[in-house]
Amino acid sequence: MVQMNAEILAKVITKRPEISHKGTFGRAVLIGGNQQYGGAIIMSAEACIKCGAGLTTVITAEKNHTALHTRLPEAMVLAFSEKAAIQKVLDSATVILIGPGLGLDAPALKLLKNILAVQKEKQWLVIDGSAITLFSENSLTLPHPKQTVFTPHEAEWSRLSGLALDEQTTENNCAKQALLGAKIVLKSHRTTIYDNSIAYYHNPLGNPGMATGGMGDTLAGIITGFLAQFDKTIDTIGAAVYLHSLIGDELYQKNYIVLPTSISAALPTYMKRSIERN
Amino acid sequence: MVQMNAEILAKVITKRPEISHKGTFGRAVLIGGNQQYGGAIIMSAEACIKCGAGLTTVITAEKNHTALHTRLPEAMVLAFSEKAAIQKVLDSATVILIGPGLGLDAPALKLLKNILAVQKEKQWLVIDGSAITLFSENSLTLPHPKQTVFTPHEAEWSRLSGLALDEQTTENNCAKQALLGAKIVLKSHRTTIYDNSIAYYHNPLGNPGMATGGMGDTLAGIITGFLAQFDKTIDTIGAAVYLHSLIGDELYQKNYIVLPTSISAALPTYMKRSIERN
Amino acid sequence: MVQMNAEILAKVITKRPEISHKGTFGRAVLIGGNQQYGGAIIMSAEACIKCGAGLTTVITAEKNHTALHTRLPEAMVLAFSEKAAIQKVLDSATVILIGPGLGLDAPALKLLKNILAVQKEKQWLVIDGSAITLFSENSLTLPHPKQTVFTPHEAEWSRLSGLALDEQTTENNCAKQALLGAKIVLKSHRTTIYDNSIAYYHNPLGNPGMATGGMGDTLAGIITGFLAQFDKTIDTIGAAVYLHSLIGDELYQKNYIVLPTSISAALPTYMKRSIERN
Amino acid sequence: MVQMNAEILAKVITKRPEISHKGTFGRAVLIGGNQQYGGAIIMSAEACIKCGAGLTTVITAEKNHTALHTRLPEAMVLAFSEKAAIQKVLDSATVILIGPGLGLDAPALKLLKNILAVQKEKQWLVIDGSAITLFSENSLTLPHPKQTVFTPHEAEWSRLSGLALDEQTTENNCAKQALLGAKIVLKSHRTTIYDNSIAYYHNPLGNPGMATGGMGDTLAGIITGFLAQFDKTIDTIGAAVYLHSLIGDELYQKNYIVLPTSISAALPTYMKRSIERN
Repeated sequence: MVQMNAEILAKVITKRPEISHKGTFGRAVLIGGNQQYGGAIIMSAEACIKCGAGLTTVITAEKNHTALHTRLPEAMVLAFSEKAAIQKVLDSATVILIGPGLGLDAPALKLLKNILAVQKEKQWLVIDGSAITLFSENSLTLPHPKQTVFTPHEAEWSRLSGLALDEQTTENNCAKQALLGAKIVLKSHRTTIYDNSIAYYHNPLGNPGMATGGMGDTLAGIITGFLAQFDKTIDTIGAAVYLHSLIGDELYQKNYIVLPTSISAALPTYMKRSIERN
Repeated sequence: MVQMNAEILAKVITKRPEISHKGTFGRAVLIGGNQQYGGAIIMSAEACIKCGAGLTTVITAEKNHTALHTRLPEAMVLAFSEKAAIQKVLDSATVILIGPGLGLDAPALKLLKNILAVQKEKQWLVIDGSAITLFSENSLTLPHPKQTVFTPHEAEWSRLSGLALDEQTTENNCAKQALLGAKIVLKSHRTTIYDNSIAYYHNPLGNPGMATGGMGDTLAGIITGFLAQFDKTIDTIGAAVYLHSLIGDELYQKNYIVLPTSISAALPTYMKRSIERN
Repeated sequence: MVQMNAEILAKVITKRPEISHKGTFGRAVLIGGNQQYGGAIIMSAEACIKCGAGLTTVITAEKNHTALHTRLPEAMVLAFSEKAAIQKVLDSATVILIGPGLGLDAPALKLLKNILAVQKEKQWLVIDGSAITLFSENSLTLPHPKQTVFTPHEAEWSRLSGLALDEQTTENNCAKQALLGAKIVLKSHRTTIYDNSIAYYHNPLGNPGMATGGMGDTLAGIITGFLAQFDKTIDTIGAAVYLHSLIGDELYQKNYIVLPTSISAALPTYMKRSIERN
Repeated sequence: MVQMNAEILAKVITKRPEISHKGTFGRAVLIGGNQQYGGAIIMSAEACIKCGAGLTTVITAEKNHTALHTRLPEAMVLAFSEKAAIQKVLDSATVILIGPGLGLDAPALKLLKNILAVQKEKQWLVIDGSAITLFSENSLTLPHPKQTVFTPHEAEWSRLSGLALDEQTTENNCAKQALLGAKIVLKSHRTTIYDNSIAYYHNPLGNPGMATGGMGDTLAGIITGFLAQFDKTIDTIGAAVYLHSLIGDELYQKNYIVLPTSISAALPTYMKRSIERN
């Protein structure tokens, strides 16, 4: 298992091509945020836009639209009920994220099933939060596992893999990842990424100041924004995980707790710094 | 009566355990904010989240949801009418705060009665603002006084204790606290904390720049966030009171008035600084 | 006519009494902000709270409540339709401001008439913006002119005084002020304050970067906040005018235009600085 | 073709006249922002106000009003349905911008047709985003081409001019501009401005960090705000384009991506700096 270091940022975060336009950096579609958990998808969107996705559309409960636009006029927005417009943005998406604050009710399940039905061969899909639970509990299947990323914490991984917490050894996790086929970002004290039935990356960074609601939603947003604009590889996912913790660790030097939104705010400068080191 | 000093911060604000997750730092449920006073519960939530509570849910009038989410996507939110979901979050709460901006109408009273009916033996309850008045005027009783904190200013204490302003001597206050059984944070020019029929702590800090609407809501939020994550003791309440005034005093060095939200914004850095001094 | 200088700040902005509470610094009630001009009353409220009013309630169209609370959780809020609650907050008000963004329709006129009917002998009233036009066009009369301040720009003063722009000489303005009885803050390139049939103060400060929508709403908010907490004198009004321009002039050193909200943001530090110079 | 340099800023951004009021700096009316793309018109308004337009009214879907007011209380706002009030603000407008986030549906087309019907001889019109597509697809005609500016990116220019991407040579673009009569700001890697059948200006600045959703909306807002307050010339449009990229380039020194809203935030200081260099 490789322990990541700053080289993964150098490898993934490349200098942008001089001749480019917003389409060059991908179209991200983020789905989540019900009546109770609207902040989750807002935090994902904040991360996705601030790490450089070209165009970002958020599909969320209508009650969350104003808060989203106030914080992020850069985002486009659709309500869950706008079926026709949703199909249109899904159609041209580079990456789809589903789950942050989505909840577990019937409409949420229907939405997840729809995404799994329409995902195209070239499109990437990130499944986070409640969508992992819905996927597990309803025994759904992935249309394109190789372009799918799950981002469970340990309890969600338990639901997804069937492994109890004390059974979550590297070996068992590898075996279960192989069955699923999708990439797994198993979030914990020291996050590990599984792919191709191996434990690909181990993240040496992270701190207890990051143990606060919304941190996972922010990570999911960075992974989505990175897949939108960079090479669609396991390295890109690793760089997203590493950068999220790297910023968290630096902020933790001066803050007892690290707010998820403060990580997103720091993305543009940290990514620039990474480029300059090369 | 002990006069607090910075040692109480050192005692209470401990280094976070390396291996932890958001649940480690408690689940806070904050109830308040009607049609007119929505800002109050937003300010409590801001303090609670920024001082490090693991997960924070705010139960408030629906009209306040967007403002809350815009300022604090880290919060989860429920409307007063969402009975089933409310019971669920109350069930897993570590600490419940009721009162900031709650108002005095019949639904507010019903809500307070419900909280007093469902509070579990291990759960802490902070009763602030309008909820103190409602409690006093309706002669309610506490199910778990030892895990209950009242945060009255002098007029509210008058209603709660029956003591006129000029009768509020340390001796009388101690006697009335003993009758109630709950901990009392009596807010004034120099806030004093009463418990076990003694005047436990006296806060030497605070300044007239802090005499502005919302300051008490912010203090209630810090107390709640501290009880969520630290030892459930009178010291923890004392540390919250002390830190609130300490930040207020430092901001007052450069500001004619100290906005409550500016205190919350400074919490992560002040708490870090406190750790580093040890 | 006295030309103001920094001494007026020293005279008015006094050190706050150590033993005080939010009530000590007055209750301000701000009325304005219709469907189209909601930002105006938000900017007034921002100025009023940030210059130190103890408690501020804003009465505005319901559609403006969320924007107000998001920017200013410190404010309390009522919709125009909440008659009973409005009468209650008016009853305990120290200063009432009516006009910013109020508009000129029938409900606005009815509201202004109501304020003029209920103003108490000890309460101060600031009449700004559309309320000046309504007052002029409907030939209303003031119940307590000596505790009333009008804050017209030159066109509004024309409506109020009947003086055409080229008739607005100091002498004529003095005569018209005497007829009205109220204090007049005549806003222009160099604002002048009229009282007791004399041109009391002349403001040497101000700059063309301040010629932007919302600047007058902000000034009205500072006047209101100053009258809430300081001596109810013409000096206090003069200090508000002077401080508003002083901050504007300093910001103009580094900014081509001075946003009204940037003046409000600077109030706490400028007021502190003023204290320290004494 | 002239390559612009900082001299164009010196020429256009002049010191404000000492004796002036908000009307001196023009009345801008911005039209756009439907249910899905509300952020676009908010970003235009942010640019327009922060570059110094005297008074700015935004006409947008009602669902966007709160986000607009929260970010920008300086703006006035109307919903698409408020016909009478819309006609009134259009009547006194100095410059009208239509298009950012407007969308392509029937009401949007009707609105565009109305603007083209009511534009006065002295009023300037900026046509951006969806409004360019609507104009092209419906073969509309301009009432006052010499006071009209189109701000297409290359695909929109294709629709407007009929030139395929590989036919967009300077010569062809000049010929098509001559037919239209309006000024063309053709946005690309290196934006070029066409007028009087010549390629007037070429912008040497800009960077790939600016390739993100909302950048064009921000540019449209600066052009509008500049036309509101400065000479109504091609130079003024050139200065707006140059300043937008200049700020973008400086922010790009420290940021991997440049958020559109960060450009608007920097306008007041950059414009001041430009003045001081002369």
